[in-house]
Amino acid sequence: MNLLSNEDRTSLVRLRDELSKRYDEYCSMNLSLDMTRGKPSAEQLDIANDIYGLVNASDTFSEDRFDCRNYGVPTGLPECKRMFSMITGFDPSLIVIGNNSSLSMMYDTLMRSMVFGEIESDRPWSVENVRKWICPVPGYDRHFAITQNLGFEMIPVPMKKDGPDMDIVEKLLASDPTIKGMWCVPLYSNPDGYIYSETVCIRIASMKAAAKDFRVFWDNSYAVHNLYPDHRQSIPNILSLCREYGYPNRVYAFSSTSKITFAGSGIACLASNEQNITRVSKQLSLRTIGPDKLNQLRHVRYIPNLDALHAIMDQHANILRPKFEAVDSILSEELSGLGIANWHKPLGGYFFSLFLPTGTAKAVVETAKKAGVLLTPAGATFPYGIDPNDSNIRIAPSFPPLTDIVTATKVLCVCAKLIAVEQLLV
Amino acid sequence: MNLLSNEDRTSLVRLRDELSKRYDEYCSMNLSLDMTRGKPSAEQLDIANDIYGLVNASDTFSEDRFDCRNYGVPTGLPECKRMFSMITGFDPSLIVIGNNSSLSMMYDTLMRSMVFGEIESDRPWSVENVRKWICPVPGYDRHFAITQNLGFEMIPVPMKKDGPDMDIVEKLLASDPTIKGMWCVPLYSNPDGYIYSETVCIRIASMKAAAKDFRVFWDNSYAVHNLYPDHRQSIPNILSLCREYGYPNRVYAFSSTSKITFAGSGIACLASNEQNITRVSKQLSLRTIGPDKLNQLRHVRYIPNLDALHAIMDQHANILRPKFEAVDSILSEELSGLGIANWHKPLGGYFFSLFLPTGTAKAVVETAKKAGVLLTPAGATFPYGIDPNDSNIRIAPSFPPLTDIVTATKVLCVCAKLIAVEQLLV
Repeated sequence: MNLLSNEDRTSLVRLRDELSKRYDEYCSMNLSLDMTRGKPSAEQLDIANDIYGLVNASDTFSEDRFDCRNYGVPTGLPECKRMFSMITGFDPSLIVIGNNSSLSMMYDTLMRSMVFGEIESDRPWSVENVRKWICPVPGYDRHFAITQNLGFEMIPVPMKKDGPDMDIVEKLLASDPTIKGMWCVPLYSNPDGYIYSETVCIRIASMKAAAKDFRVFWDNSYAVHNLYPDHRQSIPNILSLCREYGYPNRVYAFSSTSKITFAGSGIACLASNEQNITRVSKQLSLRTIGPDKLNQLRHVRYIPNLDALHAIMDQHANILRPKFEAVDSILSEELSGLGIANWHKPLGGYFFSLFLPTGTAKAVVETAKKAGVLLTPAGATFPYGIDPNDSNIRIAPSFPPLTDIVTATKVLCVCAKLIAVEQLLV
Repeated sequence: MNLLSNEDRTSLVRLRDELSKRYDEYCSMNLSLDMTRGKPSAEQLDIANDIYGLVNASDTFSEDRFDCRNYGVPTGLPECKRMFSMITGFDPSLIVIGNNSSLSMMYDTLMRSMVFGEIESDRPWSVENVRKWICPVPGYDRHFAITQNLGFEMIPVPMKKDGPDMDIVEKLLASDPTIKGMWCVPLYSNPDGYIYSETVCIRIASMKAAAKDFRVFWDNSYAVHNLYPDHRQSIPNILSLCREYGYPNRVYAFSSTSKITFAGSGIACLASNEQNITRVSKQLSLRTIGPDKLNQLRHVRYIPNLDALHAIMDQHANILRPKFEAVDSILSEELSGLGIANWHKPLGGYFFSLFLPTGTAKAVVETAKKAGVLLTPAGATFPYGIDPNDSNIRIAPSFPPLTDIVTATKVLCVCAKLIAVEQLLV
C-alpha cells in the first residue's frame, strides 16, 4: 500500500467504500468483544492451580517458626521479602510486604506524604497550595486517577522508546519546587511496552530537583513479565543508582505477584532505602498488626526459587505471546505503510499502544463500539483522560481468547482506516 | 479477710513478710510467663482447620459467577457483605469489605478524613489547627496510638459499666467544635469487657456535637465473641439509631473475623450510612482494583449461616471460658474483701481490667516482671500511655495455656497485695 495521504480523491473514495463494506459486515456479526481489560485470562490464572494446597492445617509456620495464622510481623515474612528480592533485585531488608494490591501501597504511600510529608519536607504535602506531578504519557490511568484525586496538577511528559523524555523532565524539575513526584513504569511501560534505558535510569537517579522532597513512584509491575523467555529484559537497580548519585531517599518502588499468581489475591511489596523504609514501617505498625501471612506463605512455597519463577512466567508467556503476536501481525497487515499508524511491538507487559492520526482516536473507539468491539476509552492513557492529540489507543490483548483478539483487532484496523480516510476526504 | 486499710501496723508487717515469702518462692521458680498478648491461642486457631480446603482450583467463583482469582469487586462480594450483616446486624448494602485488618480500615478512614475531610467538613481535618478526640478509658492502646500519631489531642472519659460517662461526653461535645471524633468498643469493651447499654447508644446517636463533622469510630471487634453461649449479648444497631435521631452520617462501624477464623488472615469490614459508604467506595475504587476475594470466598463457605457461626464461636468460648474463669476465681480468692482491687468479670471479649490502689499499677507490673511474669505495661490502656491514677492493669488471658494463666494471675495477686501493703506501711 501507499501512504494514504498520497492517494487521490477517487482512490480514497473507493477505499472508503471498501472499508465501509467490511465495517458493515462486522456490524452484521453482532459482535460483543471486550478489549479494555488489562487482566490475566482464566487460562493464565489456572497456572497457579497448585497454590491452594500449599498452606493447610498441617503447616502454618514460617521458616522461623512463627504461626502465620496469628497476629504479628507487620512488614512481612523474611522469606517473602527474599521472594520479592528475587523478583525486583532489591535487598530484602529494603522491602516491606503488603496485602494483595501494589496500587493500594502506592495510594497509601501518597496519603502518608499528604498527611506527614516526606523526610525532607517542611510541611505535609496536603498543605502545599500548589503541588504538581510528572506523568509520562501515554501512561496508566489508575496512577493518574490517584494523583488527580489528591489534587496534584499533572504535567504530561512524552514517553520515548528508552523512557520519559528526560530533557523535559530535568528542565521541569530543576526549576519548579512544586513538582513533588513522578510516576514511572520502567519495565514494559503501560501502555507502550517500552523499557527504560540505563541512561534514563541514571538521569532519574541523578537529576537535580528544586523540591528537596521530590519522590519517584517506580511501579515495577512487569518485573518478570517477559513474552520471550530467551530474551528476558531487566532494568538497573534504581535504589542503588539513587544511593550512588546522592539522592538515596528519592524512590519508592512497587511490585506484586498480581500477574504471577492471582490478579486479585497476590502479594504486593514496597521497597525504598533504609531511611524511608524505617519511617514507613513505623506507620505500617500503627496501621495494622500485620498483613495476611498465610497468603505470603502460599506464595513463598509456590515460588521457592528462580527456576520456579521462570517456569511460571514462561507458562504465562506461552499463553500471552500468541495473542500479542496476533495483534502485531494484524496491525502490520492492515496498517503498515499507510502512514496513519505506529506502534511498538512489546517484549513483555500487558498492553499495546497504537498511535493514529491526530484527532481520530475517539472516533475510532466510538466506531468500533458500534460494531460491538469495546476498546479502552481514547484519552484514558493521559492525565484527566485528555489526549491532546486524540491519537492514542490502548490495546489490552491478555484477557479475551485469541479468536476474539483477532476479530477485535481487525475491526479496530478497519475503523482506524475508515476514520483516517474520512478525515482525508473532508 | 478484712480491709487492708483497717489492719494495724503489726498485722501489715506480718502480711508483708508472708507475701514476700510467697513472692520469693515464685521468683525461685524461674517463671517466664507472658500475659500481654490479646491474641487467640493456637488451639483456637485450630478451630478453623477446615477453612483451607474450601477454595481450590475446582471452584473459585462467587455466587454470581465472578472468578474471584481476578481483579474486580472493589467493595467486596455480596455474599461476604451478607456474612458481615449476620455478624454485625447492619444492612449488607451499608457494608464494604476490606482485607485482613479492621485496624487498618480505621487508620485508612482517619487518613481520608485528614486528607479530604468528612461530608460536612469545611476543610480537611489535617489543616485544622486544633483537633481533639474523645477516648473512653481504660481503652485500646492501638486506637490511641493512631489518634496520637495523627495529632489529635486525646480527651480521656471514664468508662462506666454501661459505657462511657455520657454526661461528660455530651458536655464536652456540645461546647467544643474541635472535637472531631470518639473511639468506642461497644460490646465487651477493651479492656473492661463492659457492654454499652441501649440508653448509652441512644445518647451517642442523638447527642449534639459542636463539630458538624463529628464522627464515632465504632469498633465492634467482639460482636459474636461471647464466653457464655446461653447468654449471648448484643448491642443496638447504631446506624439505625443515628438515622432515627437525626445524625445519619455520624458513625463508622468496624468488625472483622480476626478472632473468628485467623487473627492474621481474617476479613475486615467497614459499615456506615449510604452517603458515607458511597463516598468511601469511590475512594476504595481509586485505591485498589479489589480486596482479596479468594479469602472472602473461604470465609463465606466456612461461615455459611448463623448455626455455623455459633458452632465456631461456641468452640472459642469453650477454650476461653476456663481461662477467664480461672483469672476471676484467683482474683476473687486472693483480692476480694481487701479493699484494694476491683474488676468486672466479662461475659465475652478478650480482656480483664484490674483496678488497684492509686499509684501502684506500675510497681505491680514491675514487680511481677522480676518474678518472670510479663503484664501489659501499666498506662497502656490510657492515651499517651499515661494512667493518671496509675491504677489500671490489663490482663490478657487468651493466649497462654491455662496452667500458665493460673500461675501468672497468682503472681499478679501476690504482687498487688505486696505493693498495697508496702504503700500502707510507708
